[in-house]
Formats: sequence, C-alpha cells, structure tokens
Amino acid sequence: MKVVVDAFGGDNAPVEIVEGAIEAINLNKDLNIILTGDENKIKEILSKRIDRIEIVNAPDIISNDDSPTVAIRQKKDSSLVRAFDVLKENDDVVGLVSAGSTGAILTGAILKIGRIKGISRPALCPILPTVKDGKSVMICDSGANVDCKSEHLLHFAIMASSYYSIMANEPNPKVALLNNGVEEHKGNELTKETYSLLKKLPINFVGNIEARDVMSGDVDVIVTDGFAGNVLLKSVEGVASGMSKLIKIEAKKNIFTLIGAAMMGKFKGLKAKMDVNSYGGAPFLGCKKLVVKTHGTANRQVICNTILQVVKLYENKLNEKIENLVHELTEKIEVKE
Amino acid sequence: MKVVVDAFGGDNAPVEIVEGAIEAINLNKDLNIILTGDENKIKEILSKRIDRIEIVNAPDIISNDDSPTVAIRQKKDSSLVRAFDVLKENDDVVGLVSAGSTGAILTGAILKIGRIKGISRPALCPILPTVKDGKSVMICDSGANVDCKSEHLLHFAIMASSYYSIMANEPNPKVALLNNGVEEHKGNELTKETYSLLKKLPINFVGNIEARDVMSGDVDVIVTDGFAGNVLLKSVEGVASGMSKLIKIEAKKNIFTLIGAAMMGKFKGLKAKMDVNSYGGAPFLGCKKLVVKTHGTANRQVICNTILQVVKLYENKLNEKIENLVHELTEKIEVKE
Repeated sequence: MKVVVDAFGGDNAPVEIVEGAIEAINLNKDLNIILTGDENKIKEILSKRIDRIEIVNAPDIISNDDSPTVAIRQKKDSSLVRAFDVLKENDDVVGLVSAGSTGAILTGAILKIGRIKGISRPALCPILPTVKDGKSVMICDSGANVDCKSEHLLHFAIMASSYYSIMANEPNPKVALLNNGVEEHKGNELTKETYSLLKKLPINFVGNIEARDVMSGDVDVIVTDGFAGNVLLKSVEGVASGMSKLIKIEAKKNIFTLIGAAMMGKFKGLKAKMDVNSYGGAPFLGCKKLVVKTHGTANRQVICNTILQVVKLYENKLNEKIENLVHELTEKIEVKE
Repeated sequence: MKVVVDAFGGDNAPVEIVEGAIEAINLNKDLNIILTGDENKIKEILSKRIDRIEIVNAPDIISNDDSPTVAIRQKKDSSLVRAFDVLKENDDVVGLVSAGSTGAILTGAILKIGRIKGISRPALCPILPTVKDGKSVMICDSGANVDCKSEHLLHFAIMASSYYSIMANEPNPKVALLNNGVEEHKGNELTKETYSLLKKLPINFVGNIEARDVMSGDVDVIVTDGFAGNVLLKSVEGVASGMSKLIKIEAKKNIFTLIGAAMMGKFKGLKAKMDVNSYGGAPFLGCKKLVVKTHGTANRQVICNTILQVVKLYENKLNEKIENLVHELTEKIEVKE
C-alpha cells in the first residue's frame, strides 16, 4: 500500500515532512511512500536510498498566496499537483497528505480526484480537544462549503460519523447539530430543516448543540455549514491564544518569580492541549480517494501520525462506508437539491 | 428622566435588581426609576419609601421556560410586560432594563415598542473583552436575527457604530465584517454582498475579520448575522470556561500546594475578565425606545451600570443618530429587500 506525501507543503517543508515519512515507514512495514518535490533536496535529507520511499520530481511550489484554482491548473510541476497526479493515476496509492495551502488542496481534490458517488460537497473535518481527558470532537464542515443546503449537512453527518467511528473505534458516535439553542424548534432556516432530516438518518443523532458546549466532550461529531464551522474553529483558536497572552501578562506581573514560572510551565502543557493544529490531519471527506490536510506548522510527529491515519482510514474502508450510507440515505429521504 | 426596571427578571431578582436601582439613583440625582414586580416584596427590600423610586405592581413572572410570544401576549400582569407598558405609555420614561428571558425581551420590544423608522430588524449588541487592556469589542447581531439579508447587516453596522461611538466616546469606531478570511473576495453569498455595500456607508468600515482575531482589540465593532454571531459569542464563553476547568485540574494536580493556590488566585481575575456577562447590558438596538438586556446572573453593580448606560445612550441621542444614518443610507444605497 502506498501513500503520496507533498514534501514541499507547509512551513517546515521539506525536512520535517521527509523525516515524518521515514518515521511512518519504520512504524508500518507494509507501507510505501511517494514523496513529491525537488528531488535533489529530498535526496539530501534522506542521506541514503530507502527502499520503501520513492521520489517524484516536482521543482515548483504552491504557496498560500497563490490563487488555488489558478495554481492547480497552471503549476503542473508543483509538489502538490504532482502528488494529486500520482494519487489519481495509481491504483495502489490510497491517499495523499499535504501541509500546504488549504484552498489548493481542496481545489486539487475536487478537480483531480473527484467526489464519492452521491456526495455533492466534500467537507473538511478537523478535530478539537475537549475538557474530558483523551476525548476529542470532530467538526464537519469547518470551512470548505460556506453556503450550504440541508442535503449537504446530511452528507457531512454521514461522512464525519463514519470517520469518527473508525478513528475512535466507536461503532455509534454521537452526532449533534451546531445551533443557537438546544430545543428542536431553534435555529435558522437551514438548521431547522436539517434537524428534521437528521432524525431520519441511520446515525446516532443526539440533537442540537450550542457553541458554548462544543468542548464539553458530550458529543463526538458536530455538523455545521462551513461558514459557522469556520467561525467556531477560529473562535476556539482565538480565545485560546488570547487567554494565553493574558496569562503570560499575569505571570510576568507576579512578584514571586517562582510562582510566575510555575504558572507558565503548567500553562505550556495546557496551550499544547488547546492547539487545534496538533491533532494530526483534517481529512477532506467525500473525495474518491483519501486526501488529508495537516497544519502548515506540522512537525515530523504530526506528519507521521497523519500518514498512519490515512492507512487506518483506508484499511477500515472509510470511503466504502460513506458510499453505502449515502446510497441508503438517498433511498430513504427525499431532500431538496 | 425615568428608566423602568423589571425587578423580577434574572437569577438574582428581586434583591439585586432593587439594590442596583438604589445605587443608580444615588449616583445620578436627575434619575427616577420605576420598578415593576410584586409590590410587597419590592417594598420589603426598599425598607423605607424612596422619593425617586416608584413601584408598578405586577405579581406575575415570565420564566426562561415560557414561550416568548405566548408569554408577552398572555402574561399581562408579569413584571416584564408591565415594564413594556410603562415604557410605551410614558414619554418621560426613556428606557427599559431587564435581566429576564432574552426571547421575551426581544419579543416584547418588537410587539410593544416597535422599530425605529427604516430599521427592519433590531439587533442584540453585547460586548466582548479583548487582549488590550481596557479595550472591548461589540458584536452585532449576536442572535436576535438568525436569517439575515445584506440590508440587515448594513443596519447592524450603523446601529452598533453609533452605539460604540457613544459608549467609548470615539467619533469614528472601526467596523469589521465577520468572515472566513480577510480578503475582500472571501465569504459566503451574504458576506460578499454585504462587504461591497459596507464600503459605501458613512462609517469607518475596515474590512473583514476572522473569528480568531475578534479578541485582538484591533477593531471596535464586528458585524455579523445573528447565527454566526451567536456561534462566536458562545464559543468564546465555552472555551473560556473549558480552559478554566483545565487550569483547575492542572492546579489540583500540582504537588506544590502554594503554587496551585497562586495559580487559581491569578486565574480568578482572568476568568472575570473573560466573563462576557460582566460587561453590563446588551442593548436591543433599533427599537423606538432604549431596551437593554442584562445577563440573568447580573448583580447589583451590573444592574446599576446598565441603568446608567441607558441614561448615557438617551442623553447622547443614540436613536436619533441611528435614524439619521438609516435615512442617509436609504438615500445612498439601493439594497435588495
């Protein structure tokens, strides 16, 4: 089984990406990796030839400043476009990992790989920490689709529920709808219509959730349109970083240097826990093949985790599960297009 | 000048409400207050007759469990409905303060008081803390209007900008649009259309803001539809409270009890700063008379501040400013209804 990795996406490329790939093949003896990017630079990092790592030369790079559509169409020699070509053209390549521009990854996935039958809108599904130890929550969609209809949210629910059940080995994840109140009658036009349809799905729909309870750890998957999901995710980042600054100021003010230092030490662990980017990759659910975006700041550990995440999702047949559920859905529920 | 106060709204009613009213008249010698609620219970708290406090007997109470519309229509003897009657029927009563059910206050304001000419959707405008000392930011709308058109967001911008300029004595507040990216082309259908119209308004529109930068203190007013505004506000609450729990757990784990205790002491001040409810009232902007909702947990200090906030807004002619700006807007910009 092979995974293709964009070696030149993200702030720490190419060193951390290549090192993460090496860690991954050391942890999984059945795994081969194809790295795309500047061949000479990758070879320098590898230092010696490694049997289970191939290189596909791609001297160009897509940056966050590039327009995603233009970049995917025109930068044919970029590490990301080459990675999509490799994914598309080879049956034994089961997934793609990139820490590059989110917009370009989403655009490339749609244009080059296409959607699972029945899914009209693939969606980004990152993970947030919760206050319960070891418990995370998945947000779908977090920004790929800023204008949604209820049909799309039903697909997000099916996809994220299937994804969670594999990652957490939990057959029946609790799925909630992000809303402005917990009561069934609450919401805007979109969430009210979605609520009534979610009740009919073959998933464990537990009702509405308000943004203040997202980190409670009481639910596993939160379904939302991409605009509100983006606001939610970025608020969490913003408050965590804002509080971090305020705590630093408090610690500096503290006349007992020891206590100030202890506060900061304790807080560093907490800040890491609150870092929404440290939780591996966010898959772009609903594409014909697995495409996982990791954060631009991902280090080798995160890259390695993300590659192994792709393997796990493939081995547990995520896309087949999604396709079957969507098929079941379209037979059961008539939704407005 | 008179302000009417619902003495039986909120968790701390009636004692904290009545005490807050007494503090307010002590701080402003030109102010009279009308308290609505169970006359005997209010008299018990007052202990003696106070010249500038009147009581309007209203034995019934609207709770958070009541349906807002039903409650406003049927509970005619409730402290809130009576307060709206007093506000409506008396020219010298300039505003209303309640810590009761948000839904009932919004419904009462619309049904009993009505809208400023030209404003189709009044909006809730609470205050959030920022990382800059003493600097706050206002969010409009935070949940009163969950389905919006661009026209409504223009009105929110005008109203919140006028409100901020009075509260912060800042003639030209920076107004930003909540969006999923800072670039002009970013957004959903609503924010893209709104962006192009906001540029034409006679306000200081500074562009898009992402949810992660809301607490930066770089802008004064954030304009958003009520659904996304609600997600934003409740995320901030949720993360602040979630981090608070995590810090407590860390502090308890700490074997140096002294350090744990010091951490908690420092953190209490921080938690108070992050408490979105401690910042006085959130006005329901765009009603013919001033209606300000304070949090259900408001204590006497917050109640007093909120009453004085109403006086300040009245004396600085908030509603006249809004009406003039909306008039100017409708002459300048043709918007889709």
